[in-house]
Amino acid sequence: MTAAFADRLIDTARSLGHPLCVGFDPFPDRIPALFGPAGAPETAERFFHEVLALLDGQVVAVKPQIGLFEPWGAAGVAVVQRLIGAARDRGILTILDAKRGDIGTTADGYAAAALRPGGAFGADCVTVNPYLGIETLAPFVREAQTAGGSLAVLVRTSNPGAGDFQDLDCGGAPLWQRVAEGLVPLQDQLAGAGDWSSLMVVAGATWPGQARQLRAILPRALFLVPGYGAQGASAAEAVAGFVPGPAGAEGGVVSSSRAILYPPAASSAATLDAWRAAVREALTAATGELAAAVAG
Amino acid sequence: MTAAFADRLIDTARSLGHPLCVGFDPFPDRIPALFGPAGAPETAERFFHEVLALLDGQVVAVKPQIGLFEPWGAAGVAVVQRLIGAARDRGILTILDAKRGDIGTTADGYAAAALRPGGAFGADCVTVNPYLGIETLAPFVREAQTAGGSLAVLVRTSNPGAGDFQDLDCGGAPLWQRVAEGLVPLQDQLAGAGDWSSLMVVAGATWPGQARQLRAILPRALFLVPGYGAQGASAAEAVAGFVPGPAGAEGGVVSSSRAILYPPAASSAATLDAWRAAVREALTAATGELAAAVAG
Repeated sequence: MTAAFADRLIDTARSLGHPLCVGFDPFPDRIPALFGPAGAPETAERFFHEVLALLDGQVVAVKPQIGLFEPWGAAGVAVVQRLIGAARDRGILTILDAKRGDIGTTADGYAAAALRPGGAFGADCVTVNPYLGIETLAPFVREAQTAGGSLAVLVRTSNPGAGDFQDLDCGGAPLWQRVAEGLVPLQDQLAGAGDWSSLMVVAGATWPGQARQLRAILPRALFLVPGYGAQGASAAEAVAGFVPGPAGAEGGVVSSSRAILYPPAASSAATLDAWRAAVREALTAATGELAAAVAG
Repeated sequence: MTAAFADRLIDTARSLGHPLCVGFDPFPDRIPALFGPAGAPETAERFFHEVLALLDGQVVAVKPQIGLFEPWGAAGVAVVQRLIGAARDRGILTILDAKRGDIGTTADGYAAAALRPGGAFGADCVTVNPYLGIETLAPFVREAQTAGGSLAVLVRTSNPGAGDFQDLDCGGAPLWQRVAEGLVPLQDQLAGAGDWSSLMVVAGATWPGQARQLRAILPRALFLVPGYGAQGASAAEAVAGFVPGPAGAEGGVVSSSRAILYPPAASSAATLDAWRAAVREALTAATGELAAAVAG
């Protein structure tokens, strides 16, 4: 029996001493020519297989952003499927960033595709959108329970206009808090063997105040924190919703993509070794910052 | 220059005398064995190509539900790409039901994949989720403007638990109304040559009262109405948000999937001709009901 997602995530973060998750965001014009012709899905695939090799044993999770592979259609989706398989083979947790959300049998389809072992993606976790109601999350919860996996529900996103609807006052509390309150039963349904639940919530690093409020509502949910690095939030802001644990502050993963994948020195690298050195340097900088932030 | 989505949709609905859109929802165990081995994506593809041939000249649009193709991974996505191409070749409007929603460059990716001519899907319209804020819809609006296409924003969905968040009181009006109010500028940006905007909004047929309120907020937005047929709403309820036009009530499309794709007589059909007759009968029943409803 595989350990629950929560336990695997927290154990890895404790042992690494930081909560870094690396987002797999392909930007065709930023992938060095070393990896093949610009704009081809095969080029992105080679690139991310090399990235994965560098990340092995260094990060808690990887998060393929399917929206940036989807312009390649089926070929891009096939790359995501293979990258998730390769990450799993290396023992790295996988979060499919797909922001799915639908009703009834369609939600069943998305959940099975994302989370079922041996299914289309077989990821450990998938991001989902709550606008259609709590019932529409149930198929993802069921698949997560069966597989020892997770779902990461959008609560307070990192973008500048996130507040358009998420911050609307709903009877004395903003919408995002109402969403968080609606997730409390799911937190319990996905309890792990340790202190943490396998329920994840997306809480943008750009809003550390909200992260602390969210932690009060969902004390055991893991946070998936985007917005650190290229989107402008500091490491300290990114872990604002974490709580003290045996090896420093803990309570989720902090995701960074562009700062690690495309540091300036990597774009101009003439050789694979020079590229590796540049990405390793960016990775070390991020893990060092986050390790310092959780050490407090 | 292709006519705007709004004008194409309304012209077709007026000339057919009904607003039917057929959802392409593959349920592998309901596709007759006539089309191939149960559960194979090739079987679903053959099935929907035959459905398309039956629909040619009979319906306003088709709406592939990608969430039900995604369990097949890249193979399922490839089927959706080819079905959209085949529908386009027949001059049938295509609505990619994907409920996408993300921020920044990822939203750009989803929008290009869904709507760009020659892109991954090249659909005329894609369904999107507004939870991340109005700014996150902008890439879809831009692609729609460039291509003469559309986006269909989830406002009030058809599922039983839709009200969990959509009905929360946000300062005197429910969230779904706040979303609709936020869409007013997009309605203007996507104005067609006639009375209608190419902005679509999803308004479940199961909530005719809300549909009429939504029509008051967005007088020129086209409605994409799910929930008619298998989900229990009547034809009259489905067109509750329509308004009088030169050829009867108009203002969007009403989607039906299971009632047309899988009528009882079709499941048990022993020959392709018997299957065709059964599907044609279901199609005639739905178009007849909707024609009567718009004729008032």
